[in-house]
Amino acid sequence: MPQVCKEQVYKPTDTNIPRLGEPKVKSPLKHGRYVDEDDAVLVNLSRQSVEGTKGRKKRDPAYFELAGPRSNLYFDPSKAKCAVVTCGGLCPGLNDVIRAIVMTAHNEYHVPSVLGIRYGLAGFIPSEGYDVLELTPENVSQIHEFGGTMLGSSRGPQQVGEIVDALERMNISILFMIGGDGTLKAAERVQAEISKRNLSIALVGLPKTIDNDIQFASPSFGFDTAVEKATEAIRCAHVEATGAPWGLGLVKVMGRESGFIAAQSAMALQDVDFVLVPEDEFDLSGENGFLQHLEKRVRTHGHAVIVVAEGAGQNIIGQSREKDKSGNPVLGDIAGTLKTEIKEHFHKQDIECTLKYIDPSYIIRSVPANANDRIYCSFLGIHAVHAGMSGRTGLVISRWNGRYVHIPMKLMTKARKKINTCSNYWRAVLESTGQPGSMKNG
Amino acid sequence: MPQVCKEQVYKPTDTNIPRLGEPKVKSPLKHGRYVDEDDAVLVNLSRQSVEGTKGRKKRDPAYFELAGPRSNLYFDPSKAKCAVVTCGGLCPGLNDVIRAIVMTAHNEYHVPSVLGIRYGLAGFIPSEGYDVLELTPENVSQIHEFGGTMLGSSRGPQQVGEIVDALERMNISILFMIGGDGTLKAAERVQAEISKRNLSIALVGLPKTIDNDIQFASPSFGFDTAVEKATEAIRCAHVEATGAPWGLGLVKVMGRESGFIAAQSAMALQDVDFVLVPEDEFDLSGENGFLQHLEKRVRTHGHAVIVVAEGAGQNIIGQSREKDKSGNPVLGDIAGTLKTEIKEHFHKQDIECTLKYIDPSYIIRSVPANANDRIYCSFLGIHAVHAGMSGRTGLVISRWNGRYVHIPMKLMTKARKKINTCSNYWRAVLESTGQPGSMKNG
Amino acid sequence: MPQVCKEQVYKPTDTNIPRLGEPKVKSPLKHGRYVDEDDAVLVNLSRQSVEGTKGRKKRDPAYFELAGPRSNLYFDPSKAKCAVVTCGGLCPGLNDVIRAIVMTAHNEYHVPSVLGIRYGLAGFIPSEGYDVLELTPENVSQIHEFGGTMLGSSRGPQQVGEIVDALERMNISILFMIGGDGTLKAAERVQAEISKRNLSIALVGLPKTIDNDIQFASPSFGFDTAVEKATEAIRCAHVEATGAPWGLGLVKVMGRESGFIAAQSAMALQDVDFVLVPEDEFDLSGENGFLQHLEKRVRTHGHAVIVVAEGAGQNIIGQSREKDKSGNPVLGDIAGTLKTEIKEHFHKQDIECTLKYIDPSYIIRSVPANANDRIYCSFLGIHAVHAGMSGRTGLVISRWNGRYVHIPMKLMTKARKKINTCSNYWRAVLESTGQPGSMKNG
Amino acid sequence: MPQVCKEQVYKPTDTNIPRLGEPKVKSPLKHGRYVDEDDAVLVNLSRQSVEGTKGRKKRDPAYFELAGPRSNLYFDPSKAKCAVVTCGGLCPGLNDVIRAIVMTAHNEYHVPSVLGIRYGLAGFIPSEGYDVLELTPENVSQIHEFGGTMLGSSRGPQQVGEIVDALERMNISILFMIGGDGTLKAAERVQAEISKRNLSIALVGLPKTIDNDIQFASPSFGFDTAVEKATEAIRCAHVEATGAPWGLGLVKVMGRESGFIAAQSAMALQDVDFVLVPEDEFDLSGENGFLQHLEKRVRTHGHAVIVVAEGAGQNIIGQSREKDKSGNPVLGDIAGTLKTEIKEHFHKQDIECTLKYIDPSYIIRSVPANANDRIYCSFLGIHAVHAGMSGRTGLVISRWNGRYVHIPMKLMTKARKKINTCSNYWRAVLESTGQPGSMKNG
Repeated sequence: MPQVCKEQVYKPTDTNIPRLGEPKVKSPLKHGRYVDEDDAVLVNLSRQSVEGTKGRKKRDPAYFELAGPRSNLYFDPSKAKCAVVTCGGLCPGLNDVIRAIVMTAHNEYHVPSVLGIRYGLAGFIPSEGYDVLELTPENVSQIHEFGGTMLGSSRGPQQVGEIVDALERMNISILFMIGGDGTLKAAERVQAEISKRNLSIALVGLPKTIDNDIQFASPSFGFDTAVEKATEAIRCAHVEATGAPWGLGLVKVMGRESGFIAAQSAMALQDVDFVLVPEDEFDLSGENGFLQHLEKRVRTHGHAVIVVAEGAGQNIIGQSREKDKSGNPVLGDIAGTLKTEIKEHFHKQDIECTLKYIDPSYIIRSVPANANDRIYCSFLGIHAVHAGMSGRTGLVISRWNGRYVHIPMKLMTKARKKINTCSNYWRAVLESTGQPGSMKNG
Repeated sequence: MPQVCKEQVYKPTDTNIPRLGEPKVKSPLKHGRYVDEDDAVLVNLSRQSVEGTKGRKKRDPAYFELAGPRSNLYFDPSKAKCAVVTCGGLCPGLNDVIRAIVMTAHNEYHVPSVLGIRYGLAGFIPSEGYDVLELTPENVSQIHEFGGTMLGSSRGPQQVGEIVDALERMNISILFMIGGDGTLKAAERVQAEISKRNLSIALVGLPKTIDNDIQFASPSFGFDTAVEKATEAIRCAHVEATGAPWGLGLVKVMGRESGFIAAQSAMALQDVDFVLVPEDEFDLSGENGFLQHLEKRVRTHGHAVIVVAEGAGQNIIGQSREKDKSGNPVLGDIAGTLKTEIKEHFHKQDIECTLKYIDPSYIIRSVPANANDRIYCSFLGIHAVHAGMSGRTGLVISRWNGRYVHIPMKLMTKARKKINTCSNYWRAVLESTGQPGSMKNG
Repeated sequence: MPQVCKEQVYKPTDTNIPRLGEPKVKSPLKHGRYVDEDDAVLVNLSRQSVEGTKGRKKRDPAYFELAGPRSNLYFDPSKAKCAVVTCGGLCPGLNDVIRAIVMTAHNEYHVPSVLGIRYGLAGFIPSEGYDVLELTPENVSQIHEFGGTMLGSSRGPQQVGEIVDALERMNISILFMIGGDGTLKAAERVQAEISKRNLSIALVGLPKTIDNDIQFASPSFGFDTAVEKATEAIRCAHVEATGAPWGLGLVKVMGRESGFIAAQSAMALQDVDFVLVPEDEFDLSGENGFLQHLEKRVRTHGHAVIVVAEGAGQNIIGQSREKDKSGNPVLGDIAGTLKTEIKEHFHKQDIECTLKYIDPSYIIRSVPANANDRIYCSFLGIHAVHAGMSGRTGLVISRWNGRYVHIPMKLMTKARKKINTCSNYWRAVLESTGQPGSMKNG
Repeated sequence: MPQVCKEQVYKPTDTNIPRLGEPKVKSPLKHGRYVDEDDAVLVNLSRQSVEGTKGRKKRDPAYFELAGPRSNLYFDPSKAKCAVVTCGGLCPGLNDVIRAIVMTAHNEYHVPSVLGIRYGLAGFIPSEGYDVLELTPENVSQIHEFGGTMLGSSRGPQQVGEIVDALERMNISILFMIGGDGTLKAAERVQAEISKRNLSIALVGLPKTIDNDIQFASPSFGFDTAVEKATEAIRCAHVEATGAPWGLGLVKVMGRESGFIAAQSAMALQDVDFVLVPEDEFDLSGENGFLQHLEKRVRTHGHAVIVVAEGAGQNIIGQSREKDKSGNPVLGDIAGTLKTEIKEHFHKQDIECTLKYIDPSYIIRSVPANANDRIYCSFLGIHAVHAGMSGRTGLVISRWNGRYVHIPMKLMTKARKKINTCSNYWRAVLESTGQPGSMKNG
């Protein structure tokens, strides 16, 4: 039953960006315009947010600072050494971000050096024995044609002290950290250590999450490419399902806590019958359970396609307490459970279904970015350099309401972005699949 | 020389949407939430716009109404007959919009009939002799896998009276018009005639422009797909240019008055040396002219790739006074001029350049939409039906600041959207190409 | 150590095609040329085969009859009813074959009806309850744009008597069976029953095997498309492998008894380090075992990509005695074994490798055919109709040495085609991967 | 009217390959097998060719030598310097051939050096001032991911003496020339000069023709990729044609003297109404002329798609006497003529057709090779090195009847390969388009 409910937007209070000091160096940029120091855009666009809701005290609206070049810099470009590191799982667009950072630092600011740290934070640790790479316009010029990250990546935390030691040793002015939730949390600790040591090192984050589950990134880079690739896999599942009597196609896509890839690719393909996401708990059996609805669907249409986010249905299988190297809980195997339960369910009805299972995860995340993500990543990289040169630190570059903005790092890691199951977005997903509004019993 | 200049956003004053009458019918929707009648989002997000600029009188901020289903409808769904028409040139996503309208009207509102008008406005005119198509969930279910429009399209105006006659004769409640600037202007005239005749026909527009040159659509649907395809053609031009001594690749892309496709695809590919757009006049000869810079580039790099929007350089070739069937001035052939002038210029230096010219226009506009545009188009179609059922008329559905909104039709046709050549966006384009900030002499 | 060894080609003795009777009906074809009844091409092209080897008695060379239209037909086209059935697993190009059969039967021979049998041989069995589809130029005209088979498919044998009963009941003149080894064997039994009952039903087979493991099809249809898609998955494995320290990418591709997809896609991508195929047994451990070579490779290059055919390494895991519905032995899970053994091996060396496993099987087999396979499949379908109309039966249409030919069905099922590991082809694979000539110990 | 006519295969008489001298050096190859010196395959497979036609004297069958490694070499690999040059227009696969030559020469034979000649034959001429490139496994390892040729290319002949001077100066043992008809003719002259000077330089050709019009290459490399890309452009033309009343799509593809790309891509897409090729003369006007048939088609179907090879219809427009730099006659502009004549024809009937013209040439030829062509090109490169090392010269490497073979260079340039308009192939094209067998009047 439809209801009137309001958009749920996380409301930030403090959106100020820390700075290393007074920007006193004149920028050497050739083209275009500088951003005014007080240029900012509204965080929440709704009329209620701007005008306040009747009967409640109006809050001052929150703004995010606009990204872009400043006329005055904190670092002297001719002496500013930069470093770039990519952490965590692969995501389309990593090479584009690296490339844009290198190109902007060299071609616009003429910095003396941009170093590439190999294999994530491990690259800072001497005992791991990885060399750093000198990144130049020449050796990055074609990397955007390839997926993955030219620097390599790794998971897991490293000693904050050792990281800052390395930054000091290499004489780094600006460190660009490209990574997800865990990386941004590590970045906060690194920044705290930098402050403690009173060093003039700016730390600029670039939020990476193929799940699109980070607040204030709409969407996160690589997500669009991931959806494009996911639809290809789902199209294959549809072909398989229609190609056999009682044919079922089951596709598992990424989405630990948020089902955006599942929902979005189902919307794009318009050939999916069930989307299962972490945000919408469901039961397997029972009158209103998934299996009952699935059976009904197959009886009517002859086949069905199911897209499941890896984090869906954890209520069913019971979450484990194990953690992976990045500190995330190891998820229960919902796809495996579904395979078993579905076959058994049909078997009980004396129906021999043909279930084809597709797990396209690594095919999705390791392709080169599409044009849209390429441009997005270029701007993230460009604006990261502008922000760092101006002496800003402890921030991430993101796109919010269509604008590139500066967001305090600590805001990004406070809460995950999830699908609002009471939104028009989720309604459209349900309408495109035809699945019921809820598959919980009772 | 960089300067501090402000974002130029067209500031609407009246954003109210006309309505046919009081909505008194309860909506039959099953899932999700309704939009409140006063849900709206800010048009202009900048702090100045919200708080006012110092020393100037603060204006009341303008809002756009949020798109989405309303709990009360004007039309009784069980009696509301709909019609869809596609006008003007092809654009990726047309079939997706049609499909979403048909699916939403049938599956959510259970309307008795959705008619497809063939070949644009001409399909309304009896003397043209085109049959209408009954559109059903079955016959539209796979159309999004194909480019173009299943309805066909045509250019040029038709007698407003005859169109409204046809609407009356077919007993249409809601007409969905998918088309560009010219079509939206025609739609305003149709709506005026409907009002004059006191008919209860809602008219909902869906702004289509592959050039992305319509205000308040960011970007317009199909644009993302077009850029993706354009980069493929430009990549080929790059291969051709590097494959020959003094190799030049020249690619003409769409963009009559706005060079967004040219700029965006150059950004995406990062292998373009010159982007020529209508917004940035240039000279051919002279010390700071294009030819001089081109020669310098080829002498340094051995080759060069030029992307030109079809409407660029009209200052050079002199605009003709001819008009095409849609009433647009026939553009001078800038690509032809460039070909001739470039060859001659190099010939004068005794250099035999190898110039390869690519015009990928029809390949760009006739492909199926990519995943991103598919979802965008689905929502446009869905929200168009919601808007029409609620009795709104004289509006378009668009996406603005990431939200789907209702915008008065008359606002859309007031001014074209153009590249702001003093923006960070254009700066990024210039940096990616390495071309000078201006190629005007003196 | 290289050696001089001869090409191993299976040498057929009897290549005569059975016929239903004297062809007395004049063909109604409009264009082109007829094939002479004695047009034939050599099976084995080598000089030795033609001239005989010294010291051995020269055998008469074997020929395959050329496919193509005959001037005289056995069936009266105006009365010949056709039926098409697709059996076994999906393969790119099935829809193209179906389409070509329907188009040729209707547009060239003007037969009264072509029936589509649903879901494989099960579609003949009344108790299964599947309706037949009337196939027309209209309803097949766009099917080649989609993967899979519009008819559906299924595995497993059915009662031969019931199949022939159905053919009699439906009054079929020509049955086109598209399927693999098992299907062709079933077809032989069906044809025997047809003979026994003295019926005038022609049976024309179209050999389908995505593994490319059927004799006298070079390659089989869909194989080229499969390789193209497999390379995409392997490219992703390469990106994953290079993206992590001690990074390993493991890709399992189809190939139960023959490793052609694995070998061919490794050749195409040129970024694979190990190809494991059924034809080339290997050991896991030991000095010359796979794990030792893998470790050496990763120590040198930092990463490695392994492509394994599903049927490889059965010597290691011990073949099970289970059989699937098509009667094929259930293969041991070599990919699972490799994953475990590789991790353990590196773990023993105190190395934490990052192994990413990709199984793209269903993504490979369910895509639409590429241009090359489309044309191949068109000709198979066209020539199948020509053959059937001429009264030939018990044959398959295939391409051999670049010509479309008629081959007796019984020849196709006598032996599998396998990679000759002593050929230049396999040498090229080894050279492209850099793996040792053998990974067997002792 | 169909007729019985025989396949027209050009029958070579002398297929012996010249050699520089006795091969006395033992090959260092590690894997696989050597080819016997007398291994050869039949040129013409037909029964008539093998057994002779009744009443005519039987000719001795002709064989082509099998390509592949020989156990004895002419050149000492440790001293053999190689050079590679690419000439003429771009074609998919050039980089793959280059890569395979470099990889084989370095990794299998361990030659000291492979030089890349820049920009075609011009790269040999000192006054042009191009440096040579040292080609190594490292710098060619990723080139197959890009279209074009990493060496650059150029058209036109150069002084044979200067070329051989350069070979002597650079101390080249084997020169690999990748190019078309003109290049192979130049290669013959270079080889003659080498002989005259009594030099030990082997010259190995690799026949390149995107038109697929070279004898004894079936098909030529890059052709398959070209067809794949051409179908994409034609699909767009089809979308455009169906999107407008009286819609016409006209696509010009490559094919100066042979219409293979046009015919093949029409077959692959199955949505083309007229294929116009050089081999099949047609009239424009008159009762049986093209325009009349086109009009009929559009009246029936509402739209039509025409694919025209650039060399078609030269009888209509009159061939010019101009020649381009490669010595080929400049073709008349058949596409321009068609555009004008079609519009005029419909205009006369008071029909306003909508004609969209697409010229995808440079998009077709500059893409990277598909998997099929990649493997083909790899083998061409591999076998070219084997042939050169064995001391063979004045030959090309080609694939004939599915085997890689050595063919005397002079055989390749004797005649063009053309579509046999009396073949089953052309019949299939006609049937797929539905166009009449001939559009000549009277």
